[in-house]
Amino acid sequence: MSLHQEETIVALATPAGIGAIGVIRLSGPEAISITNKVFYGKNLEAQDSHTIHFGTLRDGDFIIDEVLVSLFVAPKSYTKENVVEISCHGSDYIIASIIKLMIKNGARAAKAGEFTLRAFLNGGLDLSQAEAVADLIASSSKSAHQLALQQMRGGFSNELKNLREQLIHFASMIELELDFSEEDVEFANRDQLKQLILAINKVVSRLIQSFEMGNVIKNGVPVVIAGKPNVGKSTLLNVLLNEERAIVSDIAGTTRDTVEDEITLKGVRFRFIDTAGIRETADIIEAKGVERTFEKIKSSAIVLYLFDPRETSLTELKAIMDDLHQVIQENNSKLLLVANKTDETQVNNALTGFESLGEILNISAKEKYNIQLLEDELLKAANLSQINKDEVIVSNIRHLEALQKTEASLSRVLHGIDNPVTSDFLAMDIKQALYYLGEITGTVTTDDLLENIFSKFCIGK
Amino acid sequence: MSLHQEETIVALATPAGIGAIGVIRLSGPEAISITNKVFYGKNLEAQDSHTIHFGTLRDGDFIIDEVLVSLFVAPKSYTKENVVEISCHGSDYIIASIIKLMIKNGARAAKAGEFTLRAFLNGGLDLSQAEAVADLIASSSKSAHQLALQQMRGGFSNELKNLREQLIHFASMIELELDFSEEDVEFANRDQLKQLILAINKVVSRLIQSFEMGNVIKNGVPVVIAGKPNVGKSTLLNVLLNEERAIVSDIAGTTRDTVEDEITLKGVRFRFIDTAGIRETADIIEAKGVERTFEKIKSSAIVLYLFDPRETSLTELKAIMDDLHQVIQENNSKLLLVANKTDETQVNNALTGFESLGEILNISAKEKYNIQLLEDELLKAANLSQINKDEVIVSNIRHLEALQKTEASLSRVLHGIDNPVTSDFLAMDIKQALYYLGEITGTVTTDDLLENIFSKFCIGK
Repeated sequence: MSLHQEETIVALATPAGIGAIGVIRLSGPEAISITNKVFYGKNLEAQDSHTIHFGTLRDGDFIIDEVLVSLFVAPKSYTKENVVEISCHGSDYIIASIIKLMIKNGARAAKAGEFTLRAFLNGGLDLSQAEAVADLIASSSKSAHQLALQQMRGGFSNELKNLREQLIHFASMIELELDFSEEDVEFANRDQLKQLILAINKVVSRLIQSFEMGNVIKNGVPVVIAGKPNVGKSTLLNVLLNEERAIVSDIAGTTRDTVEDEITLKGVRFRFIDTAGIRETADIIEAKGVERTFEKIKSSAIVLYLFDPRETSLTELKAIMDDLHQVIQENNSKLLLVANKTDETQVNNALTGFESLGEILNISAKEKYNIQLLEDELLKAANLSQINKDEVIVSNIRHLEALQKTEASLSRVLHGIDNPVTSDFLAMDIKQALYYLGEITGTVTTDDLLENIFSKFCIGK
Repeated sequence: MSLHQEETIVALATPAGIGAIGVIRLSGPEAISITNKVFYGKNLEAQDSHTIHFGTLRDGDFIIDEVLVSLFVAPKSYTKENVVEISCHGSDYIIASIIKLMIKNGARAAKAGEFTLRAFLNGGLDLSQAEAVADLIASSSKSAHQLALQQMRGGFSNELKNLREQLIHFASMIELELDFSEEDVEFANRDQLKQLILAINKVVSRLIQSFEMGNVIKNGVPVVIAGKPNVGKSTLLNVLLNEERAIVSDIAGTTRDTVEDEITLKGVRFRFIDTAGIRETADIIEAKGVERTFEKIKSSAIVLYLFDPRETSLTELKAIMDDLHQVIQENNSKLLLVANKTDETQVNNALTGFESLGEILNISAKEKYNIQLLEDELLKAANLSQINKDEVIVSNIRHLEALQKTEASLSRVLHGIDNPVTSDFLAMDIKQALYYLGEITGTVTTDDLLENIFSKFCIGK
């Protein structure tokens, strides 16, 4: 990989399309000298890092644009290489012309994620931080954003660094025993070692467990809206989604691509599952009732069960709840029992006698009554408000797998301590654990792994 | 208008959507101090102009992003005010959060074109230059780009400045006569004055005439493909358009929005007129033959008449040409007579006897034979290759109208010189001419005019 870094790369760093300006980024040893060849205004090679220069870019005597050039002199840049950012007028024609001009003068078109790959290879970021850059760009809710930002700023890396240091300390003591193996010395007190491994294992387990929450934060809380036909499921879904639509894009110039069937409440994203059925068929296909719902529940964190208190007998609802509770418990989901009717009085009158079923939320989807309350209950059920800002949460499945492998290796170490195995076996398992932890931050890495990670980045990052 | 400039404005300057980075721009007296309130890293108010600073943006203790902040201290900026450009990670969530943060701290969301409006109001650009900024961003061909860039860099403004200065000189001499009107002095030699006005008028007329070319450069050369049914018009159109599609987007990361039914050949844009008919009906609707074509020719600069030499008799084609030539001449269009057949041998054999009709281009749309030659002929017919780089070409219809009004006023001045009118009438007409010229560069302006011009800009520019 390192050979490539002798090349200077170029790419558009801002989104394609019409805008006031576009920013083209170059990185590599020749970034400044290549730009200087086609820049008229001053000698860029004689300028300080972190300065901005106005001038024209020319292909021969053909002026392409008036531009601002920002200089970042190695190693004071994102990639730790020389970096130039050219701010030009935001026309596709101009942007393509400038990129072509740079290629003509010795740069090469950058591959997806190549700037961040170089930042990693040059020690500017570790691998989990680099991955967080992509997560940060893709994050569309406050909680997902905070998770990615914490990871990018090194929160996860520091936690892993601590674990690695402790394991390395452990390993070095075991290695010492190996050096003196003929003398049958035991430098490392087995009880102390066991306590250490148990402590490390506890952190690894906590990180593994955090993935469930991390995944929900990153990909949204899966919610199923269930209920009998014609109870108002599609009306409720539309009310929830339309509220979101109205909030989105309140700032001129930023058009957020809202994902179909997702809403963001106070920074938490909710993803409604299998809503196609609800919408298209206007509940008719749901004739089979609760049975079909059970399938959906398996992929949901929250089940919102909607019923019409005037059309449902207490006995009937009780039976449904008994069935539901079992599935929900197995799946570790949360249940919201919601009575839907046209207005407040109707709901309250109709609900007499239902108290025994537990807490019931009274709404009217049609009249938009208590929708705010329902949203608050969704937030409460998601249980993400209690995230500790400083607590590291794993959200990347690659990291999860590495942590699980680490945990397995640590289990073998513990087994080794409790059983009569030789120090060299212990040392081997510890090295395995270190290897897997190293995969996360990129201390240990392969070209395939890097290719796999960075090819998913956008070009220009 | 000037009152607004006490406010600090903020907007996204790069296109919306997912990208590696986004750039948010602030302009106004408080641009730096507002940013400084939420920036952690260093004191931005103590930094030099044209420098870049790394740090975090925070809303309270909530970190929004790690950013690079570029500072432009008044008057060394695009708007001549304090300007800050914040380069952040390209997530819609982050961009919206930063804009909200800036608004919370005293900035206001910028209106469309407001940055460039301020550049104009603060004397950084004249009005025709400001309009060229929008043209530059929208330009999608080399010739349109060059036209806009020349105008933005002040080519047109300088030409108008010369005209105005000469007219002002003329006006001052007439005014002098008015001061001494009781003495019946004639300071301004009427013959010399007439020569001066004639010279000015010549330039104004040339500029007016240049609009035809300017309009074609800006909006594309309108081309009609005509011919009998089933002669291969839709095949030819698709071949021409597909060649373009293949050329477009050869640079990774720049996806050009190609406009339907347009091609760009060597920097010149060609716009095919009424191609919907050709495509959708596979020529069937064309059964009425040439008659319908006549209508289309009226809005075209080039008529490409396609015929099948094996299905067309010389007599028939001669009759069609006679009809066509008349319409084309009236419309000042160019004609390309094109024989379409399946391969070179067939074309040449079939064409025997057609020489008398003038130059015929032999192609095969199906076999893509001689398509390059046809493109060269289209370019030749467009006759835009001879544009003098230094010659000012008018492409804006507002400018055209102002020039036409100037010309009318100058005609009245000429009439006044040749006829016994008093100096005060002459002075009035000259002032009118000066007023209309001033409208172009914005020496003379109204709020309505500015609103009309800048509301068409994109936000952030």
